[in-house]
Amino acid sequence: MQVVNPQPRRDCGDTLDALGVEFGERVLTSRAVRDQYGRDESFHHPSPPDAVIRPRDAREVQRIVQICARHRTPVVAFGAGTSLEGNVAALAGGICIDSSEMNRIVAVNADDFDAVVQPGVTRRQLNEHLKGSGLFFPIDPGADASLGGMAATRASGTNAVRYGTMRENVINIEAVLADGSLIRTARRPRKSAAGYDLTGLLVGSEGTLAVFTELTVRLYPVPEAMSAAVCVFESIKGAVDSVIQMIQYGIAVARVELLDALTIKGLNLYSKTDLAEAPTLFLEFHGSENSVREQAEATQEIAAENGGSRFQWTQNTEERRKMWRARHDAAYSGKRLHPKGEIWATDVCVPISRLADCIEETRRDIERSKLLAPLVGHVGDGNFHLLLLVDHDDPQEVARAQALHRRMVIRALEMDGTCTGEHGIGHGKIDFLKLEHGAALEPMRAVKKALDPDNIMNPGKILEWKA
Amino acid sequence: MQVVNPQPRRDCGDTLDALGVEFGERVLTSRAVRDQYGRDESFHHPSPPDAVIRPRDAREVQRIVQICARHRTPVVAFGAGTSLEGNVAALAGGICIDSSEMNRIVAVNADDFDAVVQPGVTRRQLNEHLKGSGLFFPIDPGADASLGGMAATRASGTNAVRYGTMRENVINIEAVLADGSLIRTARRPRKSAAGYDLTGLLVGSEGTLAVFTELTVRLYPVPEAMSAAVCVFESIKGAVDSVIQMIQYGIAVARVELLDALTIKGLNLYSKTDLAEAPTLFLEFHGSENSVREQAEATQEIAAENGGSRFQWTQNTEERRKMWRARHDAAYSGKRLHPKGEIWATDVCVPISRLADCIEETRRDIERSKLLAPLVGHVGDGNFHLLLLVDHDDPQEVARAQALHRRMVIRALEMDGTCTGEHGIGHGKIDFLKLEHGAALEPMRAVKKALDPDNIMNPGKILEWKA
Repeated sequence: MQVVNPQPRRDCGDTLDALGVEFGERVLTSRAVRDQYGRDESFHHPSPPDAVIRPRDAREVQRIVQICARHRTPVVAFGAGTSLEGNVAALAGGICIDSSEMNRIVAVNADDFDAVVQPGVTRRQLNEHLKGSGLFFPIDPGADASLGGMAATRASGTNAVRYGTMRENVINIEAVLADGSLIRTARRPRKSAAGYDLTGLLVGSEGTLAVFTELTVRLYPVPEAMSAAVCVFESIKGAVDSVIQMIQYGIAVARVELLDALTIKGLNLYSKTDLAEAPTLFLEFHGSENSVREQAEATQEIAAENGGSRFQWTQNTEERRKMWRARHDAAYSGKRLHPKGEIWATDVCVPISRLADCIEETRRDIERSKLLAPLVGHVGDGNFHLLLLVDHDDPQEVARAQALHRRMVIRALEMDGTCTGEHGIGHGKIDFLKLEHGAALEPMRAVKKALDPDNIMNPGKILEWKA
Repeated sequence: MQVVNPQPRRDCGDTLDALGVEFGERVLTSRAVRDQYGRDESFHHPSPPDAVIRPRDAREVQRIVQICARHRTPVVAFGAGTSLEGNVAALAGGICIDSSEMNRIVAVNADDFDAVVQPGVTRRQLNEHLKGSGLFFPIDPGADASLGGMAATRASGTNAVRYGTMRENVINIEAVLADGSLIRTARRPRKSAAGYDLTGLLVGSEGTLAVFTELTVRLYPVPEAMSAAVCVFESIKGAVDSVIQMIQYGIAVARVELLDALTIKGLNLYSKTDLAEAPTLFLEFHGSENSVREQAEATQEIAAENGGSRFQWTQNTEERRKMWRARHDAAYSGKRLHPKGEIWATDVCVPISRLADCIEETRRDIERSKLLAPLVGHVGDGNFHLLLLVDHDDPQEVARAQALHRRMVIRALEMDGTCTGEHGIGHGKIDFLKLEHGAALEPMRAVKKALDPDNIMNPGKILEWKA
């Protein structure tokens, strides 16, 4: 972490003048505002933009990008700032386009199971709006991220195992390209075979190809019943094998989260609970009253065969919420284990058959490295997070954490996995992307150059620019 | 249809010489072979390649593309030839790469629910291979297409409503790009946020960006139970509304197909059956024994509220197969209605809320046009097919069919739909792609030019080339 800004800042004087003529005092240049928009929730080195504007519609976004394009000024799109790989840091300066005033829910098409939203709408805002409609938007990355930001980083989270990631749940993106043109990547049908999948290309492009001005996302019917369960395991392997067998058995689990012993220890300290400090699965089932019971019963049987015990399940909404609140608190409770430690969150994803090995080797490596790092996993996807607790005033601990992190990513790659399942590349994982993709980096670079020949869209992210 | 070849054929003499040195008699240039590879199952004008080669591995594909690249010779990838928009016609001549000898199932990773296959493996071949493993590959476009071809056209079919299309079910593609380089678009985890989604970009690119040499596809557990049901409706709207309500109710239907009255009439003639000649839904449910019963009961109730009657359901495998055979026969039985008519199959897809309107308006238009055209729909996706029966020796009938087809596509676009849900663009729908995408055509063109600057990859498909 603490990647040093490798980009020369570009002079934005002419751009600021031109923007001033059109946007007047809405061009925010105070140090306080700029600093706020130069960072996300990660510990990567922040880098403030030269100015921040909060456009109100697609036309205004177009004007900003057109002015920036004329002067080759960087454009950085900003959602809720909850990214974790420095994705929004303005490495070369430029103009930050904050979507917070584009937060209108444009339409809910209940019969079509989709919603049209502006990019600043957050997932909680959308779900609040949907209350009573019988529909919900499932993707839950933990933070109350903006939907534009979630699409930009190809976010997922706890229930991707059932509902997919943003890749599967964005139907259409309206976006402004680097040349200032406004496009729609698709229309509103649930599928299409018409031409290149620009929607897929923009989802996960982290603002390096376009600035989003509107999204159409999929919605799902609120299940008739939801139940939750907790089960404690003797080993990580027992927990992971249970999940594989559950899927084989056809149990359409909606969430299945692994918390390792250290995470539970942190939770006990944080929440004054008394959970067994052992690998634990938190599960959720969606379906009819009968089917959630059936699923829970089958899961209990499978877990028991794999060393699972203390299986507890509930259909009580409050108990279920409490359990997921605890899972959510896992991201913060780690601090109780290491008071001077700041959380450095990272993620990798491997084929699920390699997940237990990858986690166990990583755990041993953490111990050898004399570091503290609770581990939580979206097991159904083969995705796990390490919450490294690092004292940034201890350069040796920082160095050990960096080395451990590198080994973990390389371990995941060697197991045919990816350097990030859901956080994206930003500027924190650029070197790992190279290791992961090899020759495929060239077509990525060709696409970037074709769509953004002057490298104005969030420069320094995903790929290093080569002139 | 009968689009005339607008591409000047390029001289391939040097390429044929160079290929001859490396591949000897495996460079097939007989008229009979070339003709066979210049056409698909559509009635678009065929256009034979100058030669056909059946490479045996990725290295050989690379060599062919490298030689073609040197001489700017077109390269057309060929799977099972079951496409429907002239997708494989060698409009500018060149070398056809037939994947039929690359038909090896490389690996089945049962714990990871994926299979690694060469592009010539067909979907039936894969499912035969999977027998006994408890896993299956769900995507079923009707024809026994190759998986490479299915990925190239972003195919889907009857159970996309439950399992998604090729877009959601291809994890990784190994492919040769226009410069002869070999890439992998991804590794094998179920999700990744690492860089641009090249997998998504290549799925649906119809051979215009790359030639596939290996695919990793998702597998699913064979459900514990499957049941099928048939229900007859008074109106198209009643059938479509039932499907919307089923989804709202949370019924995870695995297939739901609409057959219109004319389709049933053709089926009765073809199969000597005595089905009611009215809009009919064919349904399939996957799950546990209890849940498929529950789903069928809830469906019957919903159907009854929407004018559905004669609801029949079965858990008998043979009866279920018979029903789907009838649905499959719908594609051929139409010929009984019009002995001189050749089938011209086309598809559009709209938001499901507009589906009943779109179908009913299209039906009225068919009647006004004095044409015969059975209509079948993947209703859960808003996708339907028209099987136009056209006597190609009757120029007036051909003209009426062309006009009707154009009106149908424009109607779908005006309803925020797409000009093709699953057949792709080929060269048959190039003009419609322009209408559909407008400004978004430019980034598509930019991507094509960036990845294939000499326009050697399946030229004349998806986009018109502009120098």
